[in-house]
Order: sequence, then structure tokens, then C-alpha cells
Amino acid sequence: MKNKIFKHLTKGDHGSSTFVVFDYAIMVLITLNVIAITLETIPSIYQSHKTILQNFEIISIMIFTIEYLLRLYISDLSHPSKSKFKSALKFIFSFYGIIDLLAILPFYIPFAIVIDLRFLRLLRLMRFMRILKMNRYNNSLSLIWSVVKDKRRELIMTGFITLMIILISSFLMFYIEGPVQPNKFPNVFAAFWWAIATLTTVGYGDIYPITAVGKFVSGIIAILGIGVVALPTGIISAGFMEKLKEKKTTVKCPHCKNSFEISSESDLQ
Amino acid sequence: MKNKIFKHLTKGDHGSSTFVVFDYAIMVLITLNVIAITLETIPSIYQSHKTILQNFEIISIMIFTIEYLLRLYISDLSHPSKSKFKSALKFIFSFYGIIDLLAILPFYIPFAIVIDLRFLRLLRLMRFMRILKMNRYNNSLSLIWSVVKDKRRELIMTGFITLMIILISSFLMFYIEGPVQPNKFPNVFAAFWWAIATLTTVGYGDIYPITAVGKFVSGIIAILGIGVVALPTGIISAGFMEKLKEKKTTVKCPHCKNSFEISSESDLQ
Amino acid sequence: MKNKIFKHLTKGDHGSSTFVVFDYAIMVLITLNVIAITLETIPSIYQSHKTILQNFEIISIMIFTIEYLLRLYISDLSHPSKSKFKSALKFIFSFYGIIDLLAILPFYIPFAIVIDLRFLRLLRLMRFMRILKMNRYNNSLSLIWSVVKDKRRELIMTGFITLMIILISSFLMFYIEGPVQPNKFPNVFAAFWWAIATLTTVGYGDIYPITAVGKFVSGIIAILGIGVVALPTGIISAGFMEKLKEKKTTVKCPHCKNSFEISSESDLQ
Amino acid sequence: MKNKIFKHLTKGDHGSSTFVVFDYAIMVLITLNVIAITLETIPSIYQSHKTILQNFEIISIMIFTIEYLLRLYISDLSHPSKSKFKSALKFIFSFYGIIDLLAILPFYIPFAIVIDLRFLRLLRLMRFMRILKMNRYNNSLSLIWSVVKDKRRELIMTGFITLMIILISSFLMFYIEGPVQPNKFPNVFAAFWWAIATLTTVGYGDIYPITAVGKFVSGIIAILGIGVVALPTGIISAGFMEKLKEKKTTVKCPHCKNSFEISSESDLQ
Repeated sequence: MKNKIFKHLTKGDHGSSTFVVFDYAIMVLITLNVIAITLETIPSIYQSHKTILQNFEIISIMIFTIEYLLRLYISDLSHPSKSKFKSALKFIFSFYGIIDLLAILPFYIPFAIVIDLRFLRLLRLMRFMRILKMNRYNNSLSLIWSVVKDKRRELIMTGFITLMIILISSFLMFYIEGPVQPNKFPNVFAAFWWAIATLTTVGYGDIYPITAVGKFVSGIIAILGIGVVALPTGIISAGFMEKLKEKKTTVKCPHCKNSFEISSESDLQ
Repeated sequence: MKNKIFKHLTKGDHGSSTFVVFDYAIMVLITLNVIAITLETIPSIYQSHKTILQNFEIISIMIFTIEYLLRLYISDLSHPSKSKFKSALKFIFSFYGIIDLLAILPFYIPFAIVIDLRFLRLLRLMRFMRILKMNRYNNSLSLIWSVVKDKRRELIMTGFITLMIILISSFLMFYIEGPVQPNKFPNVFAAFWWAIATLTTVGYGDIYPITAVGKFVSGIIAILGIGVVALPTGIISAGFMEKLKEKKTTVKCPHCKNSFEISSESDLQ
Repeated sequence: MKNKIFKHLTKGDHGSSTFVVFDYAIMVLITLNVIAITLETIPSIYQSHKTILQNFEIISIMIFTIEYLLRLYISDLSHPSKSKFKSALKFIFSFYGIIDLLAILPFYIPFAIVIDLRFLRLLRLMRFMRILKMNRYNNSLSLIWSVVKDKRRELIMTGFITLMIILISSFLMFYIEGPVQPNKFPNVFAAFWWAIATLTTVGYGDIYPITAVGKFVSGIIAILGIGVVALPTGIISAGFMEKLKEKKTTVKCPHCKNSFEISSESDLQ
Repeated sequence: MKNKIFKHLTKGDHGSSTFVVFDYAIMVLITLNVIAITLETIPSIYQSHKTILQNFEIISIMIFTIEYLLRLYISDLSHPSKSKFKSALKFIFSFYGIIDLLAILPFYIPFAIVIDLRFLRLLRLMRFMRILKMNRYNNSLSLIWSVVKDKRRELIMTGFITLMIILISSFLMFYIEGPVQPNKFPNVFAAFWWAIATLTTVGYGDIYPITAVGKFVSGIIAILGIGVVALPTGIISAGFMEKLKEKKTTVKCPHCKNSFEISSESDLQ
């Protein structure tokens, strides 16, 4: 019985296709939940379909709760450990264990503690984390993740250089534009907002320099913004290439019929 | 006779240069059609040149119809199959067969079914698909396409991460800015619009945060937008490089004086 | 005498450092010319410094004319050909020959033909081409150029895909937003302007969709814009890498002291 | 005693972990300083917390001064030279020596010379340079720097091409839009501002063309802007890859059973 549940719930991980229906049903339910909570934010729709939306929420939370309890039940099989209790803890504090719990918890909190309802609605955002569960079935994420992880130091350093540019240009802009546009650049925080909008090339147009010196500085920041895009892109490109290079080629010599290996591994870093 | 038509119509595929004139004439006609339907949207031009534009449309549809019928006629040569009927179906449901049909179909629909004229004008857009026919003669598209196809899983995963960022930031922004700017952020859909404009760094400036917390979240989204550009660019760069790596290395052995080739193929994924 | 002039004028190409002063003087003069014609567009500065600016223009045109005539005089040495006349023609119709002529020609035109002065001012823009002369001394441009040339077919195809996206989205947007914002989207040309601003992520904010469907289409176009940046970047990255791969490595075997070559050349395209 | 101070102050460079606390304390102090001078720009906060902020500044300057003097004291160990005086000079004019001095100098200047207080506030910006000290402990910067340095000629050339595009398009735009929007495009400098905002795809929306010809030119500039991002990104990608290529390939010979290494270094440029 337990083994059967384990096989059904973790089937995606084993590659069998018997109960693929369960997986897709959960994914469809997650997607419907996302659509439901989005529609809830439109007052007219929420008022006219209140009962349907609330019932749908109760039913989906029930399904997710049953799924969570089943996963907890089979935790000694999915997360083998010395004792059953340790396996349960291992599952609860695993990445997807936390996501699964956060997805259902906001629904039960009002029954437990009295808190501001406004804050509660914000907690509901965590429901989106259910979508992350879809990733469980996709291995491409691990490649992207490993590239980002391998290059984290270079990326953090690029982020640090970007932060330095934002800080220095914000102060410069506050001193240059502040006296001319006191309502646009009242303090350095307002200048931060401008610096990020310029460096990332978003450029909303709610705040921009009007003095000649300010425009000159802004132009330099905008051009540096190209570098801020080019550097991480170059780093990530190199990261993906590095993954491709970590290979071994076996060569069969056509003359003596012996095979030998050419292992080429990048030895940078 | 049939073979002659076949040779003329598919010449581009065989590399001969005898009837290159026909290909260029079709390309010029397609371009003129694009210009014509664009000019038609300017009322003053449409009114003053109504007859010319309508006659031009009738003539070009006639040419495209004849071309389509000729291609259908020679389908047993261009799409060899067991029976003539199967060849015709093969052509009709081939990529360019569908495009060719969609390009001429909107013109004939009003004679067949009574439908909203407004909708008919929208159908005319498909005429642009005629342009895709130009690609038939260009092989570079296949390289680009094969890179995108090889990397589809990584690109879809990047798209999924982007969608997650858009969803979470939209809800955050709706809860943060909604109460302060109820006419700018009335619901989560309005916040989606903001999130896409910010993450893609378009930044029209019609909707932006005005609270300190909103600006902080917006700044983080704008910076994540750099990653949203950097990741697919890095993936595509690596894809193009991977194509280049499917190369051959010639090694000259110093011992037996024989040279042999090592064909190295990336074995990642 | 002629040989001396030839050596001085083309010294940059031969790597000697004797008359480097001449090169830098020309570069400084070009830069000063750019500054001068920029300042001329500010009426107050032009009025108060009219004599200086006009004299400066006459002197610099004189210097550039003398330089051009000297280069024409030594054309049989710099552009060796069968006859002196053919050498002169070779120089006149060489890339830098044309640029040098265009840089000085607008000054002499008013003495020759009676034309609209407004148009004459536009011709002065060609003076900027003098700056291109600076490139004569820099070989990095050739690397960039060769990469762009090698990848021209892929880049043109990317441009074609971009054009298709712009055309289709413009028509869609005209039909969707046109009836709601007739003064913003009066015809397809106005929609082209929106499509380019969105796809390149410039987003001025003078024109944007206000309907739900329009925002949805616009969001998709903005996301496709990422691909429009990612594809050429990936292609160019691969192009630069390809240049690095076209190398030959000579290996000396430590055991038999024989050296052999490993030539690895990409065989794509 | 001196050796002890030397070891403590330069521990980060030697990899020992005994006095890591000192390093983190300095980094926290720098971060607090950045926050403090940012908060100082908000008048209400500055007025209510004047004493705390001023005392915090005095204490941190004291700590930074002591650190500077200690580093000067041990300069004969950290920057070994012929004489103690030369070592001190070597430290003072080293990159981090200058940064450390600039970080504390603005505080002492008012005691020395009578200058405009407004200007003094601008000098305080240099305090941010303290943050650069954090880089001392991070080697990733050197990789990024070496890539940028290796590719400096290509990057400068790209910058030059960008400058050319900005100059030419600014003049074109001034002649096209100037007569129609005299207050938006009064001179070429205003057009420069537009050109940079368009080419970097920032697009604030404060200045944009309204004529058909102006929009056409602007569209071309916006599309060229993609190239302006793609070129440096491709160059930097190739730069990072080049670093990876400086690798070693081990080949096992099937004939003599000996393995030897091939160190391949890119020989372009």
C-alpha cells in the first residue's frame, strides 16, 4: 500500500508513465489556482463569483493538504533516514517540502492566530510557489542553476560594480539636479530610483535630468548600462560553454585499432 | 510540360539560375502587396487611389492563385507519394502550402460566407505570410532554427522563471501600490502590464510605482530584467558555439606518420 | 621628394614613428571641426564667435584640401597601377578617398552651383566622415568587421524575422487600438513606430496600448524583443569565438622529440 | 609588534582566518557610513538625528585614520623597497593607498582651507571609495578586469562606432526635428541627449521625434542600438571563453603508453 503511494507520488522521478495523469492533474490545479487568485483581485468578478471562487479554494487546499500528508506518510521511503521521525523532518525541511507547506499554510492560519487580514492576502502569494513544483519534472533548470552557481563570484562582482555605479551616480545626480528639480530629486533615495531606471535602460520617464551637466552624467550612466548588460551576459555565455567543454572524447585509431581518450577539461578557476 | 513547370517553380531548391527572374518577380509582388495594404490604412490615400489599390489586389491574388494551383498540379513531383491525391494533401498541409493558401484565402471568403467585414480586414494580415516564402530560398534560417530547437528546453525554463518573476512581482506590486494608486493598479492584470514593461526594460512610463517600497521592488525587478536578457542570450550563444564544435580535428601521428581525423561531438544533454 | 611625402602620409601603415605628429595633428583638427560645427548650431555662440568659426572652417578646409591633393599626387605609390591616371582613379574611388573628398566638397559646392542653403547645411554632416579616417590607424575594426561579414546571412535573417514581427504586430495593434485611440494609432505607420519602440525596448511612452487585448499583444512583443537582442548577440558571440578557433597548435612530443601539428578548423558554413 | 599589525591588516591577502573579525568590522563600518551619508540627504532625518550622525562620522573617520596610519607604519613590510621613505611613498601612491586617503581627506579639509561648503559635500562622495576596499579580498574582479583589458581595443572601437552613430544621427535629427520642435531640439546638444537615450534604449520619453522622417531615422537608430548592445556582449563573451581556452589537454598515446599534455593558447591578436 505505502509502496504503491510512493510509486505514484514520485513516479515523475522514476520515469515510468503509468500515473502521469496525477502529475498533470496537479499542474492543472496549480494553474487554475493562479488564475483564480488573479481574478479575485478584480472586485466585480469577485463579488459575482464569490461562492464559486471560495469553494474552489477550499477544494484545492484540501487536495494539496492530502497530497502533503501522503508525502509526509511516505517520507521514510522518499527521504530514507535512521528513524521515521528523522525522515519526516528531512521531508518537511527539504526545498519542495517547505514550498508545499507554504502553499497550504496561509489557508489554515486564520483558524489558528488572529492577524491582520490585509497581511493574510499577501501571504497567499506563496501559493505561486506551487508552480515551482512543476520544475521537479524538468532537468533543464539544474543546468541553468549550475551555470549561475559556477559563475556566482563573477556575477556578484558584476553586481557589486553595478551597485558602486548606482551609488556614485545617485550622489552626483542629487548634487547636480537636486537644486534645480527639488521635487524630483529631494534626496539620494529618489536619485537611486533614477539611477536604477537608467542603468537597467527601463527609463520610465517620471524622473530625468534637465541640466546640461545632469544630462552629460546621465548619458555616461546609460552607456555604462550597456556594460552592465554585456558583462553578466558574457559571463553566463562562458559558463554555458564551459559546461560543454567538460567532456571526454574516445578516439579509435584507424591504424592500430587501439582506442585512447582525450580528456579536455577547462582548468580556469 | 509538367516537369518544366516543376523545374521553374522549385528552381530555388535546385540551385539552377535559369528562371531566377520568376522568384524575384514573386518577391517584388509580395513586397508591393505589403506596401499596398499598409497604404490602405491611411484613409486619404485609400480614398484617392481606391481603384488602383483594388485592381492591384485582384491582379496579385490572381497571380498567387495561379501559382498555388500550379504548385498543387506538380505536387506529385515536389511531394512524391503513393498516389496523386496523397501528394496533393502532402503539399496542402506542408508549412508553405498552408502559408500560400492563407495568403489567398481571405480574398475568396466574402464570396463564400457572410461574415463581419471588420474581422475580414484582420484576416488580411495573413497576407504577410507571403513574405515567409522568401525564406524558402535562404538556408540561414535553418541554422537559427536548429539552435533555438536544440536549446528549447533551457529557453522554456528561462521563460518559466521569467513568468514566475512576473507573477510574484505583479501580486507584490498590486498589494503595495494598489491602495495608493487605485486607478493605475486597479487589479493584478494592470500589475502584469507593469511587470512586463519593467522586466523587458521597455518602460513606457504610463504606470510606475510612487511609494518607497514599490520603487524598491521595482528596482529589484528591473535588475532581474538584466538576467532575463542575459540567460537566453548566454543559452543561444552556447547553442551557436555547440554547432561550431561539431568539428573535425586532424592529428598527424609522429610515430606511424599517418594522419587521422577526430570528429568531436558535444555529448552534453 | 615624392617618396618622402608618401612615407610621411602613409607612415601609420608602415609602423614607423617618425612623423606620428602629423597623424595626431590631423586627428586633433578633425575633433576640433566636430566641436566647431556642433557649437555653430547654438545661435548665441554662432553670433558672438562668427568670425572665429568661419576662419577656422576656411583654414581646416585648406589643410584637408592640401592633404587630399598630396594624397592624389602620391597615388601612384600608394595605389600602384599600370598608369598614373589609373592610380589616381584608384585612390579617388577608394573608401578613404571618397570620404576625404566628401569631407571637403560641401565647402566648394556653393562656389560652383546655386543650391538651397538649408540643404547645404545638411551636407556638412559629411564632415563627420573625417573621423572615419582615424580608423585607418586601427586594426581592431577589421576584426569586428570580419565577424559581422562572416555572420551577415544569420544577421540579415534575424533582421528579417524582426521585420516580420514588426509588420504583423503593427497591423494587429492598428486593428486593436486604432478604434479606441484614433489619434495615437491613425494608420499602420503610427503602429510601426510603436512596434519598433517596443521591440527595441526603447519605450518612449508617447504611444502605448490601453485596451486589455492591446496590452496582451504588446506584452508578447516586448518579450519577443528579448529574443531580438539575444539572437544577434549569440550570433556575434559565436562569430568572435569562431575567429579564435581558426588556429593551429604545434605540439612537441616529449618522448620522441618530434613535433606535429593539430589543426582545428570549424567546418560549419 | 610591527609584524603582528602587518599580519592582522593584510591577513585577507594571506588566507589565514585568525583576525577575519577585523575585516568584517571594517566592511560593516563602510556600509554603515554609506547608509549614514545617504540618510543625511533627507532634511527631516538629518535635523532630528544631527548629533548621532555627526558623532558617527567623527568616530568612523578616527577609525579609518588610525587604520591608514597603521598601514603607513607597516608600509616597509607590505610594500618592500630600498628605504622606509620609498616604501611609504609606494603605499601612498598605490591604488588602495589613494582610495584610503581620499576616503578620510574630505573630513580634514575644512580645518585646512576655507572652501565652499557645497563643494565639500560633493567631495564626501569619495567616501564611497571605501567600498572598493572590499574588492581587495575578492579575486573575481581580476578575471573580469583582465577580460576587459584584453578586449580593450575591440571595446574602444565599438565605442567609437557608437559615437559616430550618435554624432551623425544627432545632426540628422537636429535638421529634421529642429524646425518642427524648436523647444525640444534647439541645438545639436539636445539631439545628443535624444540619441544617447535612444541608442541605449533608455527612452525616457522627454524628447522624441514627431515627424514621419524623424520617426524613420529614430527607428533605424533604435535598431542599431541592438547592435550597440550585441557587439560588446559578443566581444566580452569571446574574452571570457578565450580565458577558458588557455587550457591543457592530456593525450594518452596508444603506441608508447605515455601520456603528455598539450597546452593550447589562443594565438589570435
